[in-house]
This record gives sequence, C-alpha cells and structure tokens, in this order.
Amino acid sequence: MKLGILGGGQLARMMALAAYPLGIRTVCYDPTPDVCAGDVTELITADYSDLSALDKFLANVDCITIESENIPLECAKYVSKTHSFYPSVKALDISQDRLVEKRFFNSLNMRTAKFIPVNSEEELEKALQDIDFPAVLKTRRFGYDGKGQYHLKGQVDRAKAWQLLKNQSLILEQFISFECELSLIAARSKDGQTVFYPLNQNSHKHGVLQSTEAPFVNHELQQEAQIQATRILDHLNYVGVLTIEYFYDGHHLIVNEIAPRVHNSGHWTIDGAQTSQFENHLRAIFDLPLGSTEVLGHCFMLNCLEEMMPIKSILRIPELHYHTYAKASKPGRKVGHITLVDQELERYHKSKHKLLNRS
Amino acid sequence: MKLGILGGGQLARMMALAAYPLGIRTVCYDPTPDVCAGDVTELITADYSDLSALDKFLANVDCITIESENIPLECAKYVSKTHSFYPSVKALDISQDRLVEKRFFNSLNMRTAKFIPVNSEEELEKALQDIDFPAVLKTRRFGYDGKGQYHLKGQVDRAKAWQLLKNQSLILEQFISFECELSLIAARSKDGQTVFYPLNQNSHKHGVLQSTEAPFVNHELQQEAQIQATRILDHLNYVGVLTIEYFYDGHHLIVNEIAPRVHNSGHWTIDGAQTSQFENHLRAIFDLPLGSTEVLGHCFMLNCLEEMMPIKSILRIPELHYHTYAKASKPGRKVGHITLVDQELERYHKSKHKLLNRS
Repeated sequence: MKLGILGGGQLARMMALAAYPLGIRTVCYDPTPDVCAGDVTELITADYSDLSALDKFLANVDCITIESENIPLECAKYVSKTHSFYPSVKALDISQDRLVEKRFFNSLNMRTAKFIPVNSEEELEKALQDIDFPAVLKTRRFGYDGKGQYHLKGQVDRAKAWQLLKNQSLILEQFISFECELSLIAARSKDGQTVFYPLNQNSHKHGVLQSTEAPFVNHELQQEAQIQATRILDHLNYVGVLTIEYFYDGHHLIVNEIAPRVHNSGHWTIDGAQTSQFENHLRAIFDLPLGSTEVLGHCFMLNCLEEMMPIKSILRIPELHYHTYAKASKPGRKVGHITLVDQELERYHKSKHKLLNRS
Repeated sequence: MKLGILGGGQLARMMALAAYPLGIRTVCYDPTPDVCAGDVTELITADYSDLSALDKFLANVDCITIESENIPLECAKYVSKTHSFYPSVKALDISQDRLVEKRFFNSLNMRTAKFIPVNSEEELEKALQDIDFPAVLKTRRFGYDGKGQYHLKGQVDRAKAWQLLKNQSLILEQFISFECELSLIAARSKDGQTVFYPLNQNSHKHGVLQSTEAPFVNHELQQEAQIQATRILDHLNYVGVLTIEYFYDGHHLIVNEIAPRVHNSGHWTIDGAQTSQFENHLRAIFDLPLGSTEVLGHCFMLNCLEEMMPIKSILRIPELHYHTYAKASKPGRKVGHITLVDQELERYHKSKHKLLNRS
C-alpha cells in the first residue's frame, strides 16, 4: 500500500508517521524544496502544474490524498483521472471558495453568518447596507490562517478594506460575536462508516489557531454537529477526515468553514485519543475499519509559533507531549505543538496553567 | 540532536519513529541489508567489526544506543571511546553472559534460580547432582527467544543436551515452576531520575514472547520489582530503558535476566501508556525529563509471528492498534504486534477473547 500526499508540510509529516505502523508507505509532493515531511518520508519537489513530475509521482502510488485545500484544483483533477483521490475533487472545489462553501452549507440547512458576494467597490457599498458592522471582507479563495481578510468596524474601514483586497473575488460576511470557536473532526470510510471526535474548543489570535481544548462537553451541540457532519459527508460521498469549524454564539452552531483534511485542532488526538485523526484518515482511504475516537483524558494542545518552546523545561510536566515539525523559524509560522493529556482534572488545570505561563 | 542506533530491527524502527516528534534524528547500523528500521530512517549496512564504517557512522551522531544486547562488546567499546554510549558497556557486558548476569543479581541480593557453570560433560554430570530435574542447560552467551537452551526432564536427556550445546560455555539452571512470567520496564535519566511502568504479565511459547498483558496489578510485587530495578540502575549508573524479566512462583519474584534496552513486553506502551518506552529511552539518553508512565487502559499486546494478522479483519475491533514491522516472513520471526487498549474492563475481555480467537 502506497499513498501519495499532495503537500509536504507538517500534516503530511504526521500522516506519514502514522502510516508506518499500518504498513502504508507514503510519498509527498510539494513545490517548495525541503518541506518538513521530507525528513520522515520520500519527497518529490515539483510544481503542481508539472505533469511529467506528477506522472512520476502517480506511477508509484495506489491512491492520493491532500494535506491542504489550497492544492490547485487542476492538479487534483489531473491525478484523479487515473487514481483514487481522497476526499474528492468536489470537496476540494467547495472548500476552495468561501462563497460556494457557504451556499453549500445553506443548501444543507446549516446556519452560516450572513454573506454577500462582492466584486466591485459599488457592490461592497451596497452589501454594507444589508450587513451591519462589524463585518469581515474576505477573499473567496486561498485564504488561510487569517490571511486575505479585513475586519470592518465601521464605514471608515471600507476604503482601506477595498484597497487591500480589490482585484480578487470577495465575500462580505457578518461578523459573529461568538462565545467560543468550536470544531468537529469526523471521518468517513469507503463503505460509509462514520466516526466523530468530541468537539474541540479553539482559540485563535490574528486568525491563527493558538490552542485547542478537548473534549468540549455539550451533548446537545455534539449531536447537532455530528448530524451536520453526517449530512456533508454523505452528500459528498466523502472518504477521509473532514473538519468543520464553527462559531458558537451561546445559542446556535454557526458553521464558518470546512477543511477537507486532517486539521490543526485535531493534533491532540495523537496523544489524547485512542486513534489519531491521521490514522483514521489513512484507515478511511485504505478501506479499513475506523478506529475508536475515545478520549484518553482532558486534552490541551498549544501551537508553537516561530520557535519551539524549550524542550527540557516543557517536559518537566510529565503529562506533556512534544511535537516539533523540524521547520526553520519564520514570522508566525507553525513549527510544532505541545499536547497535555491528563485523566486527573485538577492536575490537568495546574499543568495547563504552567504551560501557558511558559509560552 | 542525532542518535546512532546499533541494530536496525523493529526496536530501532520504533525508536526512530518515536524520535521524530522530539526533533531527534536517527541513523541505524546493522550488518544485515534491508533491515526494517531502514524504511523509516537512515541505515548503514556494515559489519560490527568494520572500523571505517563505524567511524563514518560516528562522525554523524551525538551519542549511541543499542537495540540488542547481542551487539559485539568490542564494537560497543570502540564506539564508547569517542561517544556517549547508552546504557553502558558494563550493562551490555553483564547481560551478554548468563553466568556473569546471575552472579550480578545475587550480588545485589536478588533471588535467581539455582545455577552452576558447565564446561564439560563431567561438569554437567556433577552439576546434575546439585540441581534437581527438571533443569535447563543454556549457552552463557548469545541466546535469545529460547535459542541455545535445552530442557532436561531426566538423566535420559543429558547426553542429547550435551551433544547439542557442547563446545560453548554453558550454565545449568534449576527449572522454575512458575505461576506466571512478569517483566518490569524502568527508565533512568542522566541525572538519576527513575520511572517505572507497571509490571507486565508475559506468555511465552518455545521461548518466544507471544503476548503481554498490562498492568499486572500487585502492589507488593510492583514495589519489590521497583526496589530491585533501582538497585540495578543505580549500581550501574544506568541511562536509558532497562527491562527485568522475572518468574513468579506465587511467593517470590525470581529474576531470570535483564535486557539493557527497550523490550517486546513494553510494546503496549506505544498505545497504552502516557509515554512509550521508546520515547522514555530517548528522553533518558538525551538528558530530558522522563515522561509519565501512567496507563491509559487495560492493555494486551499480541505478537504476530511469521505473518501479520489480516489488517481489515483485525481492525474491526475499534480499540485495536496495528503495528507491522514491514518484514518478510520467516519461520518464527516477529513481524509485528497488535495492541488492545480499553478503559472498559468487560469490553476489554471480550475484545481480547476475539483477538485470540482470530490469531
């Protein structure tokens, strides 16, 4: 069994590490040289439009998956001509365009923030008559980690937002004043079996995930999210891990976006769940029964941005797990994460407090 | 941080996989080509006596460890001249010779089976006047997985045992009629911190480990084993993971042997303990605080001999973890293991029963 992964960052790296015990070999494909998955598995460096390199990549693998929804759709279409491509070209297509994505959610009766497509300054002005401040102007495509977004607090921000984002297809969204941000990680196998991890509670800063706590225990919301996830998964005949990101305003789950892949908010599952999101993704696409998503304790995941926290001091807390991606430091870059898992709640809170004080 | 591992089998493979998240790179060294650690990390194929290959290996690493106590002592001595070698040449020396090992245990007031060195047929005859049948004649060196042993039920077996094992230094041991076989896995760090996993209960067949169940809960025996382990670890100024194998006759722990390394009976810790034995070995030798050895559920590990159990049927039990070593089939060869972890005791017993029925 050999899996081709489009993308060679940390998600591909962790997927490759999860693949070895299952007897699945991997090869990653990334236009950027020396990406971090290359430390742990085979890596092909070539552009996503380089058909001869893609052919070489394909000659060697049984099926293909992705570590990012920003893989060019043309590339996904090309590889899916000859190979099984997971989750699917359609899921990728939807998740690449905020407008298509939000309309998709609405078509499945999922609540979203109010949104209006914007393609000119006039359209922005008009949209701002329908959507109250605060609002968020976003590019429809290729946004991630808060990039390609501008928050408008009032009319005064309109011109600046337009200047920054013009010449791209845009969407204006109502800003949701949320109580918390949640995400659900689900997996669906080839034969339609589904499993769900408990809801994650996420903290972002400048659009970048800082930390995740799980399980977020709320039976009603968990049920609602799982029903919604099932609707998406079945509708798309989805195979693999899917992540749904929500705002929770204290009353309703408001879906923000999906990621058709393993997700940063699920990294705690490596140490804190019976089966990690990476392994369940692999099990799904290789037609294996999905693993238990049971939680092994109270879990807290802290992202390391720009540089890892000092390993020797961090590991003084015996319930911590250290995950470096062995990446060079760059401003704002995710270079690793730390996971705390503890069955004892009181000690968990103390350790979490210590960890946050050191970061 | 880069670690050189002498040996490139499954223990090295799992150590290499545990090393990546800690930011530790590894290179393995093994005389046999294509050993299974080579799938997951760098591998040098050369004889243990090949000094120029060893020099190349050493030039590239910060410190050295082993995956087998059968690494030639000369090789260990050579690499330890210029590099930190863990656990230590002395620990390796002791564990390579059953006679030296048993005398070492006795010197630390640890109970062993009665034993007598044997170097001639006359000595064997004489020893059998002191040691009652059943007894076991063993080679002092290079025995593993039941190899180099002969069980003597009565005088009639004496000549055959001698014929099979003569021309080697031997030891005659009293056969212990045990209630169960236990092992303790301990780790000691550079600064003398120690951690202990709970006792494992092991089942062997023809001298080969078949399965391990953990935790074996017996507070008194756990305490006794930990006191003995501490005595060994401190006496040897040991750094890394140490395994002690015991017979338990219903009254006493009777030490059989030590393995100065990670051990098959600790494979369940990958899925079933907060920190795996592999990670704690790495933490110890890289002077990092040791991780929690807390158990995450009832654990059962089943070795796969000659071939893996069929993955699709096995993984229908959602609490199972599949670990292939990606090795070719050979008679009696360990090619992988399956681990069951479950917090619910009743379900655990049912799953264990199912697993054993499929094997």
